[in-house]
Amino acid sequence: MDACVVGIDFGTLSGRALVVRVADGAELGNAVHEYRHGVMDTVLAATGRPLPPDWALQDPEDYLAVLRTAVPAAVAEAGIAMAQVIGIGTDFTACTVLPVLADGTPLCGFAELTDRPHAYPKLWKHHASQSQADRITELALSRGEPWLARYGGKISAEWQFAKALQLLEEDPDVYRRAQRWIEAADWIIWQLTGTETRNACTAGYKGIFQDGRYPSREFLAALNPDFAGFADDKLAHPVLPLGSRAGSLTARAASWTGLPEGIAIAVGNVDAHVTPPAANALAPGHLVAIMGTSNCHMMNGSVLAEVPGMCGVVDGGIVAGSWGYEAGQTGVGDIFAWFADQAVPPEYHAEARRRGLTLHELLSAQAASQPPGAAGLIALDWLNGNRSVLVDHHLSGAIVGLTLATRAPDIYRALLEATAFGTRVIIDAFEAAGLPVTEIDIAGGLMRNELLMQIYADVTRKPLRLVASAQAPALGSAIHAAVAAGAYPDVPTAASAMGRTSAAGYTPDPRAVGVYDQLYAEYVLLHDYLGRGTNEVMHRLRALRDRVISQPVPAGQDSADAALAPDAEAPQRMTESSHDG
Amino acid sequence: MDACVVGIDFGTLSGRALVVRVADGAELGNAVHEYRHGVMDTVLAATGRPLPPDWALQDPEDYLAVLRTAVPAAVAEAGIAMAQVIGIGTDFTACTVLPVLADGTPLCGFAELTDRPHAYPKLWKHHASQSQADRITELALSRGEPWLARYGGKISAEWQFAKALQLLEEDPDVYRRAQRWIEAADWIIWQLTGTETRNACTAGYKGIFQDGRYPSREFLAALNPDFAGFADDKLAHPVLPLGSRAGSLTARAASWTGLPEGIAIAVGNVDAHVTPPAANALAPGHLVAIMGTSNCHMMNGSVLAEVPGMCGVVDGGIVAGSWGYEAGQTGVGDIFAWFADQAVPPEYHAEARRRGLTLHELLSAQAASQPPGAAGLIALDWLNGNRSVLVDHHLSGAIVGLTLATRAPDIYRALLEATAFGTRVIIDAFEAAGLPVTEIDIAGGLMRNELLMQIYADVTRKPLRLVASAQAPALGSAIHAAVAAGAYPDVPTAASAMGRTSAAGYTPDPRAVGVYDQLYAEYVLLHDYLGRGTNEVMHRLRALRDRVISQPVPAGQDSADAALAPDAEAPQRMTESSHDG
Repeated sequence: MDACVVGIDFGTLSGRALVVRVADGAELGNAVHEYRHGVMDTVLAATGRPLPPDWALQDPEDYLAVLRTAVPAAVAEAGIAMAQVIGIGTDFTACTVLPVLADGTPLCGFAELTDRPHAYPKLWKHHASQSQADRITELALSRGEPWLARYGGKISAEWQFAKALQLLEEDPDVYRRAQRWIEAADWIIWQLTGTETRNACTAGYKGIFQDGRYPSREFLAALNPDFAGFADDKLAHPVLPLGSRAGSLTARAASWTGLPEGIAIAVGNVDAHVTPPAANALAPGHLVAIMGTSNCHMMNGSVLAEVPGMCGVVDGGIVAGSWGYEAGQTGVGDIFAWFADQAVPPEYHAEARRRGLTLHELLSAQAASQPPGAAGLIALDWLNGNRSVLVDHHLSGAIVGLTLATRAPDIYRALLEATAFGTRVIIDAFEAAGLPVTEIDIAGGLMRNELLMQIYADVTRKPLRLVASAQAPALGSAIHAAVAAGAYPDVPTAASAMGRTSAAGYTPDPRAVGVYDQLYAEYVLLHDYLGRGTNEVMHRLRALRDRVISQPVPAGQDSADAALAPDAEAPQRMTESSHDG
Repeated sequence: MDACVVGIDFGTLSGRALVVRVADGAELGNAVHEYRHGVMDTVLAATGRPLPPDWALQDPEDYLAVLRTAVPAAVAEAGIAMAQVIGIGTDFTACTVLPVLADGTPLCGFAELTDRPHAYPKLWKHHASQSQADRITELALSRGEPWLARYGGKISAEWQFAKALQLLEEDPDVYRRAQRWIEAADWIIWQLTGTETRNACTAGYKGIFQDGRYPSREFLAALNPDFAGFADDKLAHPVLPLGSRAGSLTARAASWTGLPEGIAIAVGNVDAHVTPPAANALAPGHLVAIMGTSNCHMMNGSVLAEVPGMCGVVDGGIVAGSWGYEAGQTGVGDIFAWFADQAVPPEYHAEARRRGLTLHELLSAQAASQPPGAAGLIALDWLNGNRSVLVDHHLSGAIVGLTLATRAPDIYRALLEATAFGTRVIIDAFEAAGLPVTEIDIAGGLMRNELLMQIYADVTRKPLRLVASAQAPALGSAIHAAVAAGAYPDVPTAASAMGRTSAAGYTPDPRAVGVYDQLYAEYVLLHDYLGRGTNEVMHRLRALRDRVISQPVPAGQDSADAALAPDAEAPQRMTESSHDG
């Protein structure tokens, strides 16, 4: 009987288990478990107490429930025997991080701490640590910390140190009781193996683990004297390479999953970072773009280079033996969704319904009926800030070239193009740093938009391939499981047997690339003018907005209805006669 | 019995007659006649033959029908005796111009010419003379013609010389038969009085009549040798001051209108230019803004100054004895209409219906519920080009500051504000040239939008008054009739008795002006960057658009439906296997 592995993808709202044949990567069965608590971003479920803005927590019991329900369901769907499974691999959202005891017990599980928000896992999109992140960046800059450049010059509020420093400063008691501060990616491995491990991916990208060490005690003490021992006390543990075996499935975890005790468990990993193996795109030059609400770009390089705007560069961060480069665009699919929801008039909605299309399909089809450049528009794709070479989340979007003849599909297309230009900026940064990009491999839901894919091929002048699996992260995790189980000597070998792109792809259209070169030049000109300090109008508009919103509402303007009332403007009206010419 | 006058306003689609009491400007009755032929911009009515793009013609019989129908109807509605009417004043769209014989007979009335488009009146918005206009501007620039600066450095395709040169070059036979080339504003006076006259307003603003003369024979010969005698032969006739008496109502015209033969007829005038008297706003410093699809700004100055971007500066162009300055914004209400039609999602339409509001009322009310600056947006109002200080109709619109939180009312407000910033640019130009603006008087349909009015007061820091009459041009014409009839010694005296603004107005809100000063500074920065040559992206986008649209449609992109078909992108698709990592 064929050997199989299970890949488990822990997402933001659910976890998915996928049963994969080791020999060829065939996907035999899968199952999804929705987290009961989902994302806690308004109230803490245990108490109903409201959470402050920008918080996002989870409950670790939800992760364990995936092991208990989705794994056996996937095996059942695959129709294989439990005994065929030789290993488990996992990937997780990151940085999703929690405080635990030295034996791995989550603090939020203690009765006396269930009402303490800081005892729970902080989900990747918890952004309430922004002030701590800003201090970490500023201190690293002032001390000339060599690792700062590997993160595009900016440490994120999402990452381990900012979230831990927030914990220390807002709930020192929970901080003190936290014997470990651990990524959920590693915590789930602990639950499966009974052994604490740390993986090279999250340690590097989220934990500032570079050149074999965390930031120094001196650095941490300068942030807060009580933070000096943070890395030594709560993080320090050997960091294992991706694809290595973290341990074996314990009897307890075997009972949860139904899988055989003792099978191999791969070290933890991250959803985006397991996707390149699923695409069999681990060779340098293969850029993997995971396209959804945002774009994540992963690429291996054989050397360390300084590439502006990287989210992170980590030795072995994607695959052992290569430098893993991660870049990103903070707004892509969510920009298209914003446009469809907020700026498309009723006739288009009605036509889409009549033709049985989604609004995106209709807008794409209408936009595709015109050649590139026909709308006379150029847009900047910063509606959610910029996290590529500019590393400035206070930037905003712009559209130039509007006329009275501009129609919704024109703007829609300009926004699609703008995100492609944003990707080309990243590719240009790679290539300028000596890391040529030869091919782009696309994963994520946006791969289904054919116009978007063709635009990306035309704008980047690179061939595009689509990841074949609809569950690329789970497949990538399964590939790591096969390596951990010894079925393949390393991840690249496993990926070439088990990962793949689909037969169809996109090549640059020679009729379009010249036009897009011109439009890209316009994009770069505006990008540099508005993004590199020549005209900081976007920063000033944002600061003005924040200031006027924080002021008390002026009389007579306190509601839309008041403004409709005949005398809403009365305070400003003149009442004297004006027959004086 | 009270003496009355009749003001007749000849618009683009209809003519309106208004009966006004001489003593105090009370409006006693009015009537409208819709032109039977309207605007001929697709086919010539007489033959059904299609017209080329950018043409716009009218039929002069429609103008006469206003005299026959609207005038007696207005008198009947007023309930006065015909004998009470002592004079008629008129205003017209301009430059609307036609070829006639030496006795005033329109050429299009001759049977053998009814199929010749060039025999008809060319309406103001006939733009097919653009190449001729460009040649006039270029030649004037190269010869250093002193009059060019009085038209913002650019002669419009809409004006008399460009339209006449097009006539000469495209239909020399009709050009030769045209013994006169006359504004409809003057032609209608000829029909009423039997006497040919020319008025100072259209001669100056549309006919390049400056310092007592038209452009020289040498200048015209350099455009086209056959054009050398154009002004001497077809225009030349004494130019009369506004408010003067052109003649008396003929027996024939008395029979059309029912009014007494021999009553005074004022010289011709233009709709925008008769509005300042209707607002009693003839004093220097009073800027009259006529706000509709576009903005027209009229102001008198006691001196001639070089103000950048004027549409025209004419001695006695608004009132005898003052320099009349005319400026404009090419897109205002039509930008708001574009946005409402093309960029507002269905929920807003539904809510407006439910609440019994227009979409503009709903968007305005919702926008008014936030303080200035709260949306974090700035826009450039050039969706229909720029005809103020930049004098560049190839510019286009822009919006900066978009985020995923931006909503339709935010953008709507940014567009309202952008047009106000455009008006402030014009005011700044006046004031920098030594012509202070002390007050703004608003006419036109947009005066009903209270949010817009308050924004204009806040942005310009000037008090706003609203013209009281709903038929301001017809009232302004009536004022000229009263002067022509001798009831008042001059137009300012008549205006102070008969014209007025309404009691209510708007004053700058001290809580808003500071924020708007900041936003205006941002507007000016982008205005100069994108409008004065630093970054000519708008020109390049337009040129690229024109180029790609004129090329043959690429295969597979010839319709929106084709792009929806599964294989629409087939030519660019790769078909080889991609399992090669």
